[in-house]
Amino acid sequence: MKQIDLNCDMGESFGAYSIGMDEAVIKYITSANIACGWHAGDPLVMDQTVKMARENGVGIGAHPGYPDLIGFGRRNMDCTMAELRQYLIYQLGALDAFCRVNNIQMRHVKPHGALYLTAVEKEDVARTIAEAIVSFNPELLYVALAGEKGRMMSRIGEEVGLKVVYEAFPDRAYTSEGTLQSRRISGAVIKEPQLVAERALRMAAEGKIVAVDGTTIEIEAHTLCVHGDNPTAVELVKTIRETLEAENIVLKPMEE
Amino acid sequence: MKQIDLNCDMGESFGAYSIGMDEAVIKYITSANIACGWHAGDPLVMDQTVKMARENGVGIGAHPGYPDLIGFGRRNMDCTMAELRQYLIYQLGALDAFCRVNNIQMRHVKPHGALYLTAVEKEDVARTIAEAIVSFNPELLYVALAGEKGRMMSRIGEEVGLKVVYEAFPDRAYTSEGTLQSRRISGAVIKEPQLVAERALRMAAEGKIVAVDGTTIEIEAHTLCVHGDNPTAVELVKTIRETLEAENIVLKPMEE
Amino acid sequence: MKQIDLNCDMGESFGAYSIGMDEAVIKYITSANIACGWHAGDPLVMDQTVKMARENGVGIGAHPGYPDLIGFGRRNMDCTMAELRQYLIYQLGALDAFCRVNNIQMRHVKPHGALYLTAVEKEDVARTIAEAIVSFNPELLYVALAGEKGRMMSRIGEEVGLKVVYEAFPDRAYTSEGTLQSRRISGAVIKEPQLVAERALRMAAEGKIVAVDGTTIEIEAHTLCVHGDNPTAVELVKTIRETLEAENIVLKPMEE
Amino acid sequence: MKQIDLNCDMGESFGAYSIGMDEAVIKYITSANIACGWHAGDPLVMDQTVKMARENGVGIGAHPGYPDLIGFGRRNMDCTMAELRQYLIYQLGALDAFCRVNNIQMRHVKPHGALYLTAVEKEDVARTIAEAIVSFNPELLYVALAGEKGRMMSRIGEEVGLKVVYEAFPDRAYTSEGTLQSRRISGAVIKEPQLVAERALRMAAEGKIVAVDGTTIEIEAHTLCVHGDNPTAVELVKTIRETLEAENIVLKPMEE
Repeated sequence: MKQIDLNCDMGESFGAYSIGMDEAVIKYITSANIACGWHAGDPLVMDQTVKMARENGVGIGAHPGYPDLIGFGRRNMDCTMAELRQYLIYQLGALDAFCRVNNIQMRHVKPHGALYLTAVEKEDVARTIAEAIVSFNPELLYVALAGEKGRMMSRIGEEVGLKVVYEAFPDRAYTSEGTLQSRRISGAVIKEPQLVAERALRMAAEGKIVAVDGTTIEIEAHTLCVHGDNPTAVELVKTIRETLEAENIVLKPMEE
Repeated sequence: MKQIDLNCDMGESFGAYSIGMDEAVIKYITSANIACGWHAGDPLVMDQTVKMARENGVGIGAHPGYPDLIGFGRRNMDCTMAELRQYLIYQLGALDAFCRVNNIQMRHVKPHGALYLTAVEKEDVARTIAEAIVSFNPELLYVALAGEKGRMMSRIGEEVGLKVVYEAFPDRAYTSEGTLQSRRISGAVIKEPQLVAERALRMAAEGKIVAVDGTTIEIEAHTLCVHGDNPTAVELVKTIRETLEAENIVLKPMEE
Repeated sequence: MKQIDLNCDMGESFGAYSIGMDEAVIKYITSANIACGWHAGDPLVMDQTVKMARENGVGIGAHPGYPDLIGFGRRNMDCTMAELRQYLIYQLGALDAFCRVNNIQMRHVKPHGALYLTAVEKEDVARTIAEAIVSFNPELLYVALAGEKGRMMSRIGEEVGLKVVYEAFPDRAYTSEGTLQSRRISGAVIKEPQLVAERALRMAAEGKIVAVDGTTIEIEAHTLCVHGDNPTAVELVKTIRETLEAENIVLKPMEE
Repeated sequence: MKQIDLNCDMGESFGAYSIGMDEAVIKYITSANIACGWHAGDPLVMDQTVKMARENGVGIGAHPGYPDLIGFGRRNMDCTMAELRQYLIYQLGALDAFCRVNNIQMRHVKPHGALYLTAVEKEDVARTIAEAIVSFNPELLYVALAGEKGRMMSRIGEEVGLKVVYEAFPDRAYTSEGTLQSRRISGAVIKEPQLVAERALRMAAEGKIVAVDGTTIEIEAHTLCVHGDNPTAVELVKTIRETLEAENIVLKPMEE
């Protein structure tokens, strides 16, 4: 029996500001990456999101980011590794506190936005994140980009002793080298639900995906990233889930 | 053998901003209240301060405050109890993470500034703080104002099941009712080191203090608050410590 | 010919967070109170909102608030008057810059949320705001609560030399003393569009409103506050505007 | 008669945090670059610093930076040009407000920290800053790096119609190509007061400086940057001023 995880960023609302359709999408996913109050999220939202994930049997992970609320953590910041390490530990501790008061274990860590992209590119950043996680709790899973492009990030996670979870993006076009097509190129993001669901199925069932040039590439994925930031996205997640289940792919929180 | 704790607020530096003489004062105290990044402190400072406390055998406590960096947590904010609860848990978790990565236990919680003053006055605030602590870790000590004025705050801490540590202020004038003299009244803060040290000694040895009207009042204290924000303050802490030790008062982290 | 202004809070979005239906509601109002980046708003939103107001012939005002993004400026903060004065000047200058680069005049100032409510209650706060406005630009209009409850605030604005614009709330229940019914009491906020529109008309045409006990009270208003934070609210604003125009009330930016 | 300006970053204190020796150093300089509350500074500090500059006859400039208080604006952030433009206008407006209420003109703009360094390297950043200044007030002076390395930045300032003020650093070693020696190389920062003062004199009197390889290079400078962040720095500024005055170099705010 094949199995896979569906992960989604959640808990990104802040104060009076509401973002994302967390209550709708949580019905269909198996892991939630919860913002930790730096690029998004606040303590009330974190507590609510942890409770909601627990009630839905969804695995809980920290989604730490840069200290950039006004930029939603989407802009690279040239932090030192010492800064980055402590920023990570702070955010892991904050989310862990809400897991603790709600009697549930935190299971994984997925860096957010620009921090994730930089970790894919820069070895020192990937290593600093991984080492911060190990210091805090070596049982936590480290979500890293699947495929060729993510090889360095996942290798480093494994080197420092973490279990690494490979993540693929069914709604993103891949090049024949196994990297994500730049968003600046038309067609980089695929929106047609049935098409995305079929790509998710191929990833989950065969570990393969068709690249933009028509070649079939291998991409070993343990988790698929989905989005829930608009009604169409929710519909898309639902389609992915139903398609996978129809083919007897087991949907479970990562590494269960 | 009488024993007492000397506590001091620490780790209040932020980014490029340095405040307090932590390295000098930590030699003389037994408990450090460490800011958690909301009204003061940042992740690098938190990590350094936890390390420094551990190396000096000083007990570590969280010093959570309002989300008011520009006001240093010194201004009351009309938060709801739901907000306050989650703000506390967030900050406790953040500091706890630095204790965790440094292999040391967090031992106590002392609210900062306006949050402390409001907890002394308002039962719902005192209770919300106490309940947040219990939810996070019921073994943590709750530092509350000693004496008549602090009775409600400490009673509530005990009601919710916490060990409460009574805190007195040797450098502050007390009224005959056992409350702190308002800072607006001349003489409310005592600066002469020998005089403050003698007051500290009387508090530690006899549980008594001379009020502004000359009457002697009872004030049961487990910890004495000292300050380290300028060279004179450090000298004062040193004098307190030496005076207590000369009279065979044992200085130990609270509740050891 | 009777005339009145319809004002609405705008430009409260922040970074990735969108709030309010500014583009829909701006078609029906005559003055926009624009957030200045402290409790809501950011520089991009401020620039866009100023442009949108200019294009729609809507008067532009600053909507300064407490430094409390996480609380949306809705919680009182015990700032000193010195702090408050400089916080106001900072925010007025920031919005004025966007008016300047877009070749349009800033016309009014309306304090936001808890700052407004505190100005209604506390003379020193009302005075500090008014004096900050005078220092920055004595030609600016000061929006103050209309009716008995707002008397002190408006008197102080006039004393320091400002033109004061009295503001009434057609969707709020008034007591027979002319104060707003507490929101904790059921019925304090009126939601039926036709009813609110009729109340707005009575305010604009006769300077009167029926209080909760059935008595008719006098309330001199130069501007009516409307909301645009949900589709129903937009419909309500549209109804108010059409009702006023059908009765030949002229809708114009305040003090034109 | 030769003349030159001495500029120094000021107003970087924030809330309870004090940084810099502004009161000491302002006696010796002729232009103050005042932080605008984003990477440093707050409204009270801005008001006080503007007043202090006015009282000392020191020219006032804005010193805008990235939205990075925790990093003191010293880390590059990958902002879009649209973001950067509005961030600049916001900060210019905020400082201008304090000039306005204190009846003094703002005269120049010098980007802070990482923003300055990025403007030296990237044409789009240099242009966006320059265009933001022009939009806000085309009379403002744009401080740009003097010498070969700063050529692009100053050219762009002039292209968009600003008066550009060339800035040199007497306490920094220069390469023979006229660029600043990297701080990572030993000797990059010169600390001996008499030596720095002589370099300042040569810059002011002859427009020349001796590079690290012993060659003499040309560096046309209108303003010299000095620092006031520690007692030694203040002594150094004093020595520079006295040395220049002893040689009849006139010290005046830039472009007077």
